[in-house]
Amino acid sequence: MSEQAIAAVILAAGRGERMRSAKPKVLHEVAGRSMLAHAMASAGALCPQRLVVVIGDQAPEVGEAARALRPDAAIAVQAPPRGTGDAVARALPALEGFDGVVLILYADTPLARPETLSRLVARAQGEAGAVLGFRTDSPGAYGRLVRDGDGALAAIIEAKDASAEERAITLCNAGLMAVDAAFLREALPRLTNDNAKGEYYLTDVVATARASGRRFAVVEGEQSEALGVNARAELAAVEAIFQARLREAAMAAGATLIDPQTVYFSWDTKVGRDVVIEPGVFFGPGVEIADGATVRAFSHIEGARIAPGAVVGPFARLRPGAEIGAGARVGNFVEVKKAQIGEGAKVNHLAYVGDAEVGARANIGAGAITCNYDGFRKHRTEIGEGAFIGSNSALVAPVSIGRGAYVGSGSVITRNVEEDALAVARGRQAEIKGWAARFRRANSREEKE
Amino acid sequence: MSEQAIAAVILAAGRGERMRSAKPKVLHEVAGRSMLAHAMASAGALCPQRLVVVIGDQAPEVGEAARALRPDAAIAVQAPPRGTGDAVARALPALEGFDGVVLILYADTPLARPETLSRLVARAQGEAGAVLGFRTDSPGAYGRLVRDGDGALAAIIEAKDASAEERAITLCNAGLMAVDAAFLREALPRLTNDNAKGEYYLTDVVATARASGRRFAVVEGEQSEALGVNARAELAAVEAIFQARLREAAMAAGATLIDPQTVYFSWDTKVGRDVVIEPGVFFGPGVEIADGATVRAFSHIEGARIAPGAVVGPFARLRPGAEIGAGARVGNFVEVKKAQIGEGAKVNHLAYVGDAEVGARANIGAGAITCNYDGFRKHRTEIGEGAFIGSNSALVAPVSIGRGAYVGSGSVITRNVEEDALAVARGRQAEIKGWAARFRRANSREEKE
Amino acid sequence: MSEQAIAAVILAAGRGERMRSAKPKVLHEVAGRSMLAHAMASAGALCPQRLVVVIGDQAPEVGEAARALRPDAAIAVQAPPRGTGDAVARALPALEGFDGVVLILYADTPLARPETLSRLVARAQGEAGAVLGFRTDSPGAYGRLVRDGDGALAAIIEAKDASAEERAITLCNAGLMAVDAAFLREALPRLTNDNAKGEYYLTDVVATARASGRRFAVVEGEQSEALGVNARAELAAVEAIFQARLREAAMAAGATLIDPQTVYFSWDTKVGRDVVIEPGVFFGPGVEIADGATVRAFSHIEGARIAPGAVVGPFARLRPGAEIGAGARVGNFVEVKKAQIGEGAKVNHLAYVGDAEVGARANIGAGAITCNYDGFRKHRTEIGEGAFIGSNSALVAPVSIGRGAYVGSGSVITRNVEEDALAVARGRQAEIKGWAARFRRANSREEKE
Repeated sequence: MSEQAIAAVILAAGRGERMRSAKPKVLHEVAGRSMLAHAMASAGALCPQRLVVVIGDQAPEVGEAARALRPDAAIAVQAPPRGTGDAVARALPALEGFDGVVLILYADTPLARPETLSRLVARAQGEAGAVLGFRTDSPGAYGRLVRDGDGALAAIIEAKDASAEERAITLCNAGLMAVDAAFLREALPRLTNDNAKGEYYLTDVVATARASGRRFAVVEGEQSEALGVNARAELAAVEAIFQARLREAAMAAGATLIDPQTVYFSWDTKVGRDVVIEPGVFFGPGVEIADGATVRAFSHIEGARIAPGAVVGPFARLRPGAEIGAGARVGNFVEVKKAQIGEGAKVNHLAYVGDAEVGARANIGAGAITCNYDGFRKHRTEIGEGAFIGSNSALVAPVSIGRGAYVGSGSVITRNVEEDALAVARGRQAEIKGWAARFRRANSREEKE
Repeated sequence: MSEQAIAAVILAAGRGERMRSAKPKVLHEVAGRSMLAHAMASAGALCPQRLVVVIGDQAPEVGEAARALRPDAAIAVQAPPRGTGDAVARALPALEGFDGVVLILYADTPLARPETLSRLVARAQGEAGAVLGFRTDSPGAYGRLVRDGDGALAAIIEAKDASAEERAITLCNAGLMAVDAAFLREALPRLTNDNAKGEYYLTDVVATARASGRRFAVVEGEQSEALGVNARAELAAVEAIFQARLREAAMAAGATLIDPQTVYFSWDTKVGRDVVIEPGVFFGPGVEIADGATVRAFSHIEGARIAPGAVVGPFARLRPGAEIGAGARVGNFVEVKKAQIGEGAKVNHLAYVGDAEVGARANIGAGAITCNYDGFRKHRTEIGEGAFIGSNSALVAPVSIGRGAYVGSGSVITRNVEEDALAVARGRQAEIKGWAARFRRANSREEKE
Repeated sequence: MSEQAIAAVILAAGRGERMRSAKPKVLHEVAGRSMLAHAMASAGALCPQRLVVVIGDQAPEVGEAARALRPDAAIAVQAPPRGTGDAVARALPALEGFDGVVLILYADTPLARPETLSRLVARAQGEAGAVLGFRTDSPGAYGRLVRDGDGALAAIIEAKDASAEERAITLCNAGLMAVDAAFLREALPRLTNDNAKGEYYLTDVVATARASGRRFAVVEGEQSEALGVNARAELAAVEAIFQARLREAAMAAGATLIDPQTVYFSWDTKVGRDVVIEPGVFFGPGVEIADGATVRAFSHIEGARIAPGAVVGPFARLRPGAEIGAGARVGNFVEVKKAQIGEGAKVNHLAYVGDAEVGARANIGAGAITCNYDGFRKHRTEIGEGAFIGSNSALVAPVSIGRGAYVGSGSVITRNVEEDALAVARGRQAEIKGWAARFRRANSREEKE
């Protein structure tokens, strides 16, 4: 079988009213990126020559999002909504002159696996097309895939139109299709909307093919791949399955997740071997965790890199641009943002390190803060190798602390500190004897009055 | 059917020894309020003319709690415990002269839905009463509801007394009843305790009715509505179902819960449309979250209001009296208590804001703290619009920072700061060259010795 | 039946390649201790006269770990790996002269309950041995236990070798055995490796016994007791079951877990009666929580003791050596390490208390920090009864604050403070009128340029 050209049509016009959202349905996120982006990435993995996104006229932001993700995508508008067949018909102009297989995807069905799509497209070659099906013991309201003697698709029967015998079929229609472009151009104009909803159904092209002696093949996937999102509870269900896949992959690659159910990955989280992740960890997009690193419980990590053997958390927050060096430690109630924490450095407690570079083996004390913002601009703090920043000190950026320097606890440092120097900036301690006893007496008197 | 008067009797005398608790069973909480309060609220939703709570003599605090919730509740004491029939009999004096339907609820069965109770009461009208049932495929030890030809209740058969045929019945007794007051007064005195446990069973009134040619109707509810709590594991099971209901309701109303399983609502949490809640968020009682607000992971929120578009967390703690303005941000490791955070204001990192008013667009730096407590009293801090509070500063209340004023990082502010002024209160920076190098040498020498 | 001597052999030589780990499989942890330690503790609970751990030659650290756990353990090395029968044969030299029952355990099967092992050993007495089985509706690939007329084990049939009839048997082989020592010495040398894998199977001793007219008894356990760990996903599954057991035990003993699924115990966590644990709490090893204490959401607790009525969290981190006194409170974003918090003392917000003693009823303000580390040594802080440490203050250890003394907010305390005195150490407040307005003007000009 020679390899054929591929085009992809992504149907993204659904209004999603049951989402009760001001945001178009397909821009809602699963594992840290929009369902639209998932569909575009799945399609993109097949290197399609053309990619068409069909949007509704009420949500131009879907088209903008699609173009931002992929500037070469064509945007087609379907208005009013008149069924899936009509939606694909809107994409035809952008497919003019294209010869090959057209993959038709739904932007609200983000669990279709690239491998499955690839099989679907391969199976469509030399046929009118191929339809994705899945097996389930409770086929309920799903359309049934009826096959003929040689395994080709005889018909797609809607559950409500099915005979008792047909209702017993456990192979169901997932909705996804790959269709020969020429056939598609021929078949779509012949669809009718002679049905209860007055819509044009894409699935009717199967009957058209059959009528002209052509065949649709059937490819079997998993039921989850057919799961569409029309309400928030379904979004949560899809998220759960997507997370389960990411968790399984991380474990198979050699990470320990003590309670996989409470570790939340983004679609692009990279997790090394012998990484240990305690319960309650949330990864936003853009995170890489190298071999042997540990992420302790209740940590929130986005856009960060964690080097081999580093230990982060519990209660750590790494924000975009955090780079935690090999063997470094970021402890509890610590926020790191746009900052490099050098090899073996320690930021163990209640600290904020932002717009900073912390040298190897430096020690940042409890409650230390880089004062990076003056209300208008962010400024940088440089902390040299092996420096010791005393607890509760404030480093007012721009400022640099030399290698091996000490900053006394509770100091507010506004000027650069030399290498190996001690810098202290704090008030002198004064004591008033007996004051507290008098204060208490006065107050307890007052309370009595 | 004309509307009839309603009274409610809540049985709350159970000792709950399997709870192994010093606290009476019905005062244990589900979704942030006691099971007793749930039962009283469910009954209260029907606007009963009289409400009687039957308590045991060993737990007067149950009576106090009932009266605190509803001062007009009558408290009846059952001692010793001699069965449900006896318990309801203790409520009869408080129902003297009442004519209508008496709803009988269990305080340890908090999942009965108000809608179901309403149906139960409605169905009882014109009958001796109505019994709540539910269907299950594993009826196990539940009593079976046997119906006669016209659907009325023929008998309640305990599982152990059931014939094989009866054991196959999948309609079970949920325990809840609504009974005609006059019939109840007539039937209760006729109950006998001629059984293995020597107790008076309320369910026996069905046979009494039947014997005198009167009928009990059957109303079907869900199995969960019959779930009683006798042990901590059951309390957790009931909590889980209650949470599932609250989560579904929030999602149906247009909130995104990335992992619904780890978002914990209280019975009264109000969640707007297009609210996004990340995993690991706990809501105590008294929280309102307006449309478009975001609550990020690992946040703990009680008695707080969050205005439209505000972003809270990750790792935020909002305590009672926190009011977060529109578009404001409360970030990681930040606690807000009895404080208004103005529109667009930011408290992003490691701060404590208590007994305070923060003006619109003010910026509270990392590690800033309102020192509101002097050991005796709480004092207030006022921060004007657009003010900038430098990192790691301490505002010693009572104190006010004028609009647009700046407080330098690391300052301890004890006196009011004028509008647009800069206030700084910190020590002067001093430096001792080479000190750190000497300190290290001395220490490493010492380590060797 | 007279009590017989017991020896235990723990098979710990498995390479666990599917774990994809640099760490030997049996050193991976479940509920806070290694699977090896679980197996050794389970065996240890039977007070064996001898304990032999069979390790592979590629992982000497397993032997070291075993000896560290139990210095009297004998270590036998199996190399190359040639099956379970061969592994047990490696243990024979260490059992020389031992007369009694030899319990054979797998170090990667940590869910076997001590009670079950005890039954297994008891049942082996007077027989060639006893085999642990479990019942399941989906026996799948498990070996089937075929019993003869009197209940003794007729054969262990591998699933792949089973007839249709045998495949329908629901009693499966858990793998664990207790074997008479003399018989074991007799049977092991007769094993052959005449099979597909070329390995010596321990299970073949059953046929040997049978052939010589001796019997193996069958003891039934739960399926979970047979769960072995070969991959990270299985490690997570075993962890989940272990946690479920710990959670059930805590609830049965009178603790409320609002969401048991998100409370993580260690194998040795001790939880009192009327303890309430909110969702999202992680307990590392060595924690005791006394009656009536509350642990609020998102807390991380290791090596700590919490006295009656204390309230910890939300967002608390207790590290080893934290001892929280009766009725004391440790609040949000607070870390306590190697420190006693006295009765009724409060450390409510954003504080670090390490290497310290805090007296009864003392109040540690928000953001207060004990500066315990100077880069070389840890020093202690003593805070007297009823002392009041103002917010954002830093106590530079070694230092002591007398009973009832006050430390002003934002102070850096470097010298001891007397009883009842007030100590203040901070800069003087200065104000520059109009500075902020000028700063803003200059900056907005700059932004425009």
